[in-house]
Amino acid sequence: MKQLILGLAATLMMTAAHAEPTATGDLGLVIERAKGSVLLVDQSDRAALARIEGLGDLSHASLVYSPDERFAYVFGRDGGLTKVDIVTRQIESRVVQAGNAIGGAISDDGKLVAVSNYEPGGVRVFDADTLEMVADIPTGSKTIGLVDAPGRRFVFTMWDTGETWIADFANGSPEITKIPDMGKNPYDALITANGRTYITGLFGEDGLTALDLWDETPEPIRVLPDYGRGQEEMPVYKMPHLEGWALTGREFVLPAVGHPQVLWIDADTLIETGRTQTHGQPVFAMARPDGRQVWVNFAHPLNDTIQVIDSVTKEIIHEFKPGPAVLHMEFTPRGHEVWISVRDANKVMVYDTRTFEKLREIEADSPSGIFFTARAHRTGL
Amino acid sequence: MKQLILGLAATLMMTAAHAEPTATGDLGLVIERAKGSVLLVDQSDRAALARIEGLGDLSHASLVYSPDERFAYVFGRDGGLTKVDIVTRQIESRVVQAGNAIGGAISDDGKLVAVSNYEPGGVRVFDADTLEMVADIPTGSKTIGLVDAPGRRFVFTMWDTGETWIADFANGSPEITKIPDMGKNPYDALITANGRTYITGLFGEDGLTALDLWDETPEPIRVLPDYGRGQEEMPVYKMPHLEGWALTGREFVLPAVGHPQVLWIDADTLIETGRTQTHGQPVFAMARPDGRQVWVNFAHPLNDTIQVIDSVTKEIIHEFKPGPAVLHMEFTPRGHEVWISVRDANKVMVYDTRTFEKLREIEADSPSGIFFTARAHRTGL
Repeated sequence: MKQLILGLAATLMMTAAHAEPTATGDLGLVIERAKGSVLLVDQSDRAALARIEGLGDLSHASLVYSPDERFAYVFGRDGGLTKVDIVTRQIESRVVQAGNAIGGAISDDGKLVAVSNYEPGGVRVFDADTLEMVADIPTGSKTIGLVDAPGRRFVFTMWDTGETWIADFANGSPEITKIPDMGKNPYDALITANGRTYITGLFGEDGLTALDLWDETPEPIRVLPDYGRGQEEMPVYKMPHLEGWALTGREFVLPAVGHPQVLWIDADTLIETGRTQTHGQPVFAMARPDGRQVWVNFAHPLNDTIQVIDSVTKEIIHEFKPGPAVLHMEFTPRGHEVWISVRDANKVMVYDTRTFEKLREIEADSPSGIFFTARAHRTGL
Repeated sequence: MKQLILGLAATLMMTAAHAEPTATGDLGLVIERAKGSVLLVDQSDRAALARIEGLGDLSHASLVYSPDERFAYVFGRDGGLTKVDIVTRQIESRVVQAGNAIGGAISDDGKLVAVSNYEPGGVRVFDADTLEMVADIPTGSKTIGLVDAPGRRFVFTMWDTGETWIADFANGSPEITKIPDMGKNPYDALITANGRTYITGLFGEDGLTALDLWDETPEPIRVLPDYGRGQEEMPVYKMPHLEGWALTGREFVLPAVGHPQVLWIDADTLIETGRTQTHGQPVFAMARPDGRQVWVNFAHPLNDTIQVIDSVTKEIIHEFKPGPAVLHMEFTPRGHEVWISVRDANKVMVYDTRTFEKLREIEADSPSGIFFTARAHRTGL
């Protein structure tokens, strides 16, 4: 273990001089939430390569990648937007673009990076090369659920007004389409991998709301109108992440809000097809890339556990306890392994998804989100 | 134009010395079928970077990428297996592993490369690092339709005997499962992106045959038993490529054999849902990554044309003539652009998939297959 740490320290010292030929297809970054750093990792070697520091408040951070899988755009809670070069292992540039931010997205051509902000509420769009602001879209509301959609578009939703806006940058300056009546207090949203369906979760009422972005004039579609946390007044320990929704064949898997369940929904009709009782309130329900398994982690105080569900039988086939505070999971792109952040063990753990065997432990400082570079090639991540 | 060629020559001379930091996420290789070379290209810059020569007979070649998107394994018609390093822009190693080969695949963990051979008939499996042979699986038949499946498996089919075999390398040496009665003279096969459904096209009888690889004991499932080239004795100018089947939402798009049509098939029930009349006999019917459009090219003598079909209306929305002998198409991973090989124009052409505007022409010598590195992260490509 000591050797591993010394090895890492040696690697870190070499960082500035790193210039040997590198391929970036199997690399990734792990958010170290307490330190404001990211840890560069290698999937094939199951190893940490370098630590890059100075990214500000990463207590609720996410990131996207440039199409060449060289640059990561890291969105910090403090409004910081940091461009990290994973080849030279250095920060390329950094701006603090707002007071309080909640995530970002990159356009399908890789030219525009958008950030959604609580304070001041709205979306700001930056040139991916220079980080110069190219558009400021104030919304008069906390803005959530920002995703990229095909055709140089961004889609995002307003907590206060319940509107979803589509900003189309195909012709340079944005054309905005506003869709009202998405529901009361949308708190998060996702877009399906094909960029067609946008779904918002609601905090202020039961159910969810979907949009068909292939429709010329998308209209709100109510989903599971009788399901949610609203009427039952269940305590909600942690809001589930909608980005964690899984698509397995024809069904979505949705972490229920306030209930120890995941819900199965037909991806076309948006009608419920089943429920699976789980160990606790789910946070992420992530499908292995082939869709055969769904891995679920849970809210505090049951956040030491993972359950694995078979997507055909909808039954739990495996349960284990990686350690205290399991915050995130990321599958290798073809799904043979999964990396898991165990924050309070200060470790990222790597498992075989077929045998469930633990293959490696990697030291990391309060790790949270894990982001592999293969995300560069996908919509809505 | 002359400047472009001189620029390329200068780049080529620099090849051996290339060692600056490189990211590989937006690179690709174009097969130059007449010269036995591959052209390294950059999607973001829409440019050729270097030519790598000495790969043997590439008249019917394909390739797969290592998980780090650094190495390409190129499968030549002459049985050559060449490992190309796209970072240093050199051939790393090369073996001639059989007399006549027909394609290959790479295991989900990136450790094994498999090649299917006509002569001698069978599959040979190589260590992806060293290209040492680790398994020889004679089949007593011309062997086609080789794909990788999750769980370190390869699936392939025998032209002469109509069997499909699954070779499972999870425990080192292969365990073989044999499935007879797939049909008469299977000529090609595909696996769906989730690795669940394997489908063979038949030359000796009408229809196709599917396997559900999630089944404990997969059984042949007949698909479109009344459709095909068999009974109608239509002339077939070129067999369509099953790898070109497109999945758009819930439907596959299948290039018909011997008919100027594409067929739409429900991905779950495998029942036909529609037909679209096309300009000629389709060769590839490829879905844009979001599934909204299907691009189709055609067999000789109508191979100067492309038609674009809307996957909702199933109607042709655009038709154009890139030039003589359109052989292949490859979309950027998020679908905003498409690259097209026009063999007899000695050009690769790049188009915007929304406006259909031509964005660039790139010189290439008799270009055929185009392979972007994002394929590294997908099953069955």
